[in-house]
Amino acid sequence: MAADFTELVTDMARRARAASLVLANCATAAKNDALHRLADAIDAAHGPLLEANRLDLDAAAANGLGAAQVDRLALNPARLTKLAVSVREVALLPDPVGDTLEEWSRPNGLKIRKVRVPIGVIGIIYEARPNVTIDCAILCLKSGNACILRGGREIFNTNTALAALITAALAGAGLPADSVQLIPTTDRAALNTLLKLDAYIHCIIPRGGENLIRFVAENSTIPVIKHYTGVCFVYVDRAADPEIAVNVLVNAKVQRPGVCNAAEQLLVHIDVAETLLPSLARALEAKGVQLRCDARSAVILERSGIPRMIAQPSDFTAEFLDLILAVRVVDSLEEAIAVVNRDGSGHSDAIITADPVAARRFQAGVDSAVVFWNASTRFNDGFEFGFGAEIGISTDRLHARGPMGLPELCIHKFLVDGDGQVRG
Amino acid sequence: MAADFTELVTDMARRARAASLVLANCATAAKNDALHRLADAIDAAHGPLLEANRLDLDAAAANGLGAAQVDRLALNPARLTKLAVSVREVALLPDPVGDTLEEWSRPNGLKIRKVRVPIGVIGIIYEARPNVTIDCAILCLKSGNACILRGGREIFNTNTALAALITAALAGAGLPADSVQLIPTTDRAALNTLLKLDAYIHCIIPRGGENLIRFVAENSTIPVIKHYTGVCFVYVDRAADPEIAVNVLVNAKVQRPGVCNAAEQLLVHIDVAETLLPSLARALEAKGVQLRCDARSAVILERSGIPRMIAQPSDFTAEFLDLILAVRVVDSLEEAIAVVNRDGSGHSDAIITADPVAARRFQAGVDSAVVFWNASTRFNDGFEFGFGAEIGISTDRLHARGPMGLPELCIHKFLVDGDGQVRG
Repeated sequence: MAADFTELVTDMARRARAASLVLANCATAAKNDALHRLADAIDAAHGPLLEANRLDLDAAAANGLGAAQVDRLALNPARLTKLAVSVREVALLPDPVGDTLEEWSRPNGLKIRKVRVPIGVIGIIYEARPNVTIDCAILCLKSGNACILRGGREIFNTNTALAALITAALAGAGLPADSVQLIPTTDRAALNTLLKLDAYIHCIIPRGGENLIRFVAENSTIPVIKHYTGVCFVYVDRAADPEIAVNVLVNAKVQRPGVCNAAEQLLVHIDVAETLLPSLARALEAKGVQLRCDARSAVILERSGIPRMIAQPSDFTAEFLDLILAVRVVDSLEEAIAVVNRDGSGHSDAIITADPVAARRFQAGVDSAVVFWNASTRFNDGFEFGFGAEIGISTDRLHARGPMGLPELCIHKFLVDGDGQVRG
Repeated sequence: MAADFTELVTDMARRARAASLVLANCATAAKNDALHRLADAIDAAHGPLLEANRLDLDAAAANGLGAAQVDRLALNPARLTKLAVSVREVALLPDPVGDTLEEWSRPNGLKIRKVRVPIGVIGIIYEARPNVTIDCAILCLKSGNACILRGGREIFNTNTALAALITAALAGAGLPADSVQLIPTTDRAALNTLLKLDAYIHCIIPRGGENLIRFVAENSTIPVIKHYTGVCFVYVDRAADPEIAVNVLVNAKVQRPGVCNAAEQLLVHIDVAETLLPSLARALEAKGVQLRCDARSAVILERSGIPRMIAQPSDFTAEFLDLILAVRVVDSLEEAIAVVNRDGSGHSDAIITADPVAARRFQAGVDSAVVFWNASTRFNDGFEFGFGAEIGISTDRLHARGPMGLPELCIHKFLVDGDGQVRG
């Protein structure tokens, strides 16, 4: 029998909306108090949390998940300690709410102030890792947003245990308990209901694989901020410093190949292909990277006796998320820009060059969230940007683009002061 | 036979995307040149434009549209002259593209700049008035966005004639002709195709009635910025100045009752209801406003011999867009805030008070795009805010909220300069 979750989820959303109106005007100290209580509770509850997590891990093993997948679900004392530390770090971040973003006066005497306020109610749809539950809850709380969390089936028991700690911390700090709510089911029908509740929920953030994000984007009547993964390029210009080229390319490809800001493709300017490609390829080979080459790069590498495959056309738009790199030779900076804009995903792209004119042309021409000059694509990250936290890396082009920190979880309102002005 | 517009519309979107990449880096002077050419062309083409408009007006009359509706479609020499003036005014506005919004350095030496860039390709879906075609085209152009316009059936011939002028102006200024494209059909199938082209189009702005906006929001896989109309409140506080209360309320209700920022409901504090309600009601009555009252306000007005109706419950959440006002008495400032948040639409709300503490509490507590103190709700408007232009008034809470000018048609990208930094 399929349960009807419409009433349950609608009621949760209604309560979240009510909580959000209180939370929007809460003192920073109260929000930080809740965060400290939560951190202390995590520290004090290793036993029950690991017990709940064990249920999920046993079920995952029974369902035949691989070791790497099970590891993503796993908590242990070290991970819990780190989680509590991250909660305390968010308490230390400045409160984004209430900042005056702009203010001006009009000739008729009206004084207009644009102030930062929370978005309202945010729905977070995510998959496996249990730290996402805490990360999202604390970032929404600090930014004054109520949130509704819908985590993955694989981690349901762990999430339920974590959510109980959050609720208790909110109550202890005198904040509305409905500020953070976990949907108590992973039934798809509940998710479908949630995605239509635009009367109460103002923003949906899906965190997970492309299929999840696409499902959410296609079924939500609530605005969605998407976090797709990336097809990121490193372009080695004719004026590239060879050492920087090797270091940045290797870092962008191998430091963590399974993430969205890892490089998936190398473009090399024809003028330096003969001289630089072999050393770039050898450095990558030493790290176990498989190269999938276009005809021109294949010939050069063959002459140097370096193993390489001939690429399939699909490799040139692929997100490998693995130790694989597509390689092409381009005839000019302009071609490099055009190729990145055509075949990339607008996420994170880099030029390696000692020529500032080429660098600025690449940065202006490449239509991506972050365009690097002589630095690794791996730096597209909220912590690396100095935001202190991130809810994700937006691949959208409205509201937020690139790393999203606390201010990106806010919007503004206008306060207009008059002394009786009317419109003529 | 239903034509298949998939290929046509997809090709338009692909060309718009290509044009957007050029337009994003165009000089301000070239964009302004196109605007001046367009203004001159409008001035020079009154004959053909009025002829095209005549076809639409005749069809509208034949289809039985009322005089007011036909008038909304109508061009005349005065309106065309005003249109050309508005184009030249946008040429005078500062170019929002390229501004550095923030810049900072990281301990590892990375220099990060957040610069304003166009969103990319914007789809505008709208209904009747022909000036929308020009307004949207010029604001997108000035902000460096390519746009695809899908206007209403009733004004198709006029739009086609206007679009031809735009295309010629773009070509004359050396800008991509595909920067502004009008979909050459008003078939619903073409719209449905458009709303799924998230590979090429980055933002959809629907301008029109609630049904159109809801259709677009429910069917688009592209992010939508909605411009719903408003259920706006004026709250007359216990410390209200009586003269300001009368002037602001009358202006908010009657200056232009059919628009989104007109007041639809009056809340009066119980302590001043006896003294102020009769004079407020008389001033509204003198302007032909029908009052729909709750029990307490009805009793007061009856005693004063002022005509009033008893409100139906639905009147208290209604958007009348007419000379009708719902009236309620509230017991406190807190009740006023709660009522506005519960029954309003978060668009434009005002408090009338001489008490700054009450004003600040109302402005903080009311969760609306613009919250006025002693000023008419009618000031929620891009021109009145000093933006020089507006593409609409966003009722969303992501990206833009309230009046949307040129900067709100932009997003940012990050330019990160290094000297070989890699992530550890």
